[in-house]
Amino acid sequence: MNFAPEFQSWAVSRQSRVEAVLEKVLPVPRIVPERLHSAMRYCVLGAGKRVRPLLAFAAGEIFDADPERVGIAGAAVELIHAYSLVHDDLPCMDDDVLRRGKPTCHVEYDDATALLVGDALQSLAFQLLGEYRLADDPLDQLEMIKLLASAAGSRGMAGGQAIDLESVGKRLSVPELELMHIHKTGALIRASAVLGARCGSALDKSELMHVDTFAKFIGLAFQVIDDILDAEAPTATLGKTAGKDADRNKPTYVSALGVAESRRLAEELRQDGLKALESFGERAVRLRQLADFIVLREF
Amino acid sequence: MNFAPEFQSWAVSRQSRVEAVLEKVLPVPRIVPERLHSAMRYCVLGAGKRVRPLLAFAAGEIFDADPERVGIAGAAVELIHAYSLVHDDLPCMDDDVLRRGKPTCHVEYDDATALLVGDALQSLAFQLLGEYRLADDPLDQLEMIKLLASAAGSRGMAGGQAIDLESVGKRLSVPELELMHIHKTGALIRASAVLGARCGSALDKSELMHVDTFAKFIGLAFQVIDDILDAEAPTATLGKTAGKDADRNKPTYVSALGVAESRRLAEELRQDGLKALESFGERAVRLRQLADFIVLREF
Repeated sequence: MNFAPEFQSWAVSRQSRVEAVLEKVLPVPRIVPERLHSAMRYCVLGAGKRVRPLLAFAAGEIFDADPERVGIAGAAVELIHAYSLVHDDLPCMDDDVLRRGKPTCHVEYDDATALLVGDALQSLAFQLLGEYRLADDPLDQLEMIKLLASAAGSRGMAGGQAIDLESVGKRLSVPELELMHIHKTGALIRASAVLGARCGSALDKSELMHVDTFAKFIGLAFQVIDDILDAEAPTATLGKTAGKDADRNKPTYVSALGVAESRRLAEELRQDGLKALESFGERAVRLRQLADFIVLREF
Repeated sequence: MNFAPEFQSWAVSRQSRVEAVLEKVLPVPRIVPERLHSAMRYCVLGAGKRVRPLLAFAAGEIFDADPERVGIAGAAVELIHAYSLVHDDLPCMDDDVLRRGKPTCHVEYDDATALLVGDALQSLAFQLLGEYRLADDPLDQLEMIKLLASAAGSRGMAGGQAIDLESVGKRLSVPELELMHIHKTGALIRASAVLGARCGSALDKSELMHVDTFAKFIGLAFQVIDDILDAEAPTATLGKTAGKDADRNKPTYVSALGVAESRRLAEELRQDGLKALESFGERAVRLRQLADFIVLREF
């Protein structure tokens, strides 16, 4: 699938902006402890599709958000995402050796360093949100911090990992799969879009709700596609070990529904997501393009 | 060492207040994911000396801080501390089986759950700081969030753990030990006192600096005493495995200086800490008592 060059160049310029923020806020390796700082940079910089920051930018554009602010919010979300990958790859979790086309953190460094890298990346995300101005009213910014923390925590992403662990070897129904993914990946994807929107001004609750609803559906679609790619794409394209889910006996949309039905579900979720954007008209063009990108991607 | 009953009852009432906050903000186990929530409560509630929250209360009292606010700040600090213990006890770190008189989290549950418990406790700490009002000016509160995040991160506590890892089997000089501990335990202890003080009103920079300086010295004294207790106290008194440092060939103040000289150093650090409080007069009585408690404790 080829995307419009115009969308591509939009995405590349936002990815560069986030990359520049990450490059700036991650301590350089010459600062003590050097190995930890070098490992943090190894796990964050120069890789990843930056889907979550792109969602923040696209949602922010509906509300004329200052790109500087969205760059910070996007970087914070990406730090949380990166920490979760590092911990998820550890031997006591998914025990994976390849991520974003490179050896995982604990393989390149060691388990203890990978543990600390994840811990420190999470702290750094919140440090950014305390340090840089993201909203005209600092009370709004406190709400944004609460939102990201709650999306990352036991009732969000970390909770989803726990549900995931408990479900290995079980056959989950589609609603059970949905519950897992709404936590595991959905919470942070929703937070990304809503944080981006909140970097803009004058938001009423119903507008935020539309963005959130869009992100909820697209987050699920993202996961369905992830399951399909894990089952179908070769490791080289994926940049992470393919076929892991089946090998680990993890319940997936593909194992519950098969590939064809999973594709239909992803398309349905995309349509539901797009519906939530109707009231925004042309202002939501980037979010619509991202929805296409997420559902039609091949990696 | 017996402490004045009046100090004891002050401490007990503050410990209860923090316990009540923690009890309230930790999700109950019937909320999904149940095992994770049960493990989080297991690791946080009903144990620990709560030294960091006590420091926050004592520093807050200098500046007439609202105890409600300090209770939240103290709980956030304690959540960060508890997460660090859970991760520190993991097999890839210190591989310890006993903590606060109970089996460690990964022994009672499993490694993956312990990893997620730590991750989720860290998120919860920042969720509290975004959710509850801690300062009259929300900009001050954003600064407090930045302070805690930075104290927890790679240039604070997590960085100290990394330095600790690298130093196993090495002989460190006293300045090298100091650098490690200023990160590993010192950063969070200083943040505790400063956050408590900032919950009070109208603080000028020099007042905050006095509190910070006090906490810097007392944090180091705390660590020196910890090393002495690890070498001397029985496991039953300590509530964690005694003699671990020597067993793991970790550099400590005792291995660098011997017990007698370490005791002298702790007393010197206590005196330096007390000096920083002089300008506060009687208002710093609790901080002085806490300094005594920390240096003269036997567990």
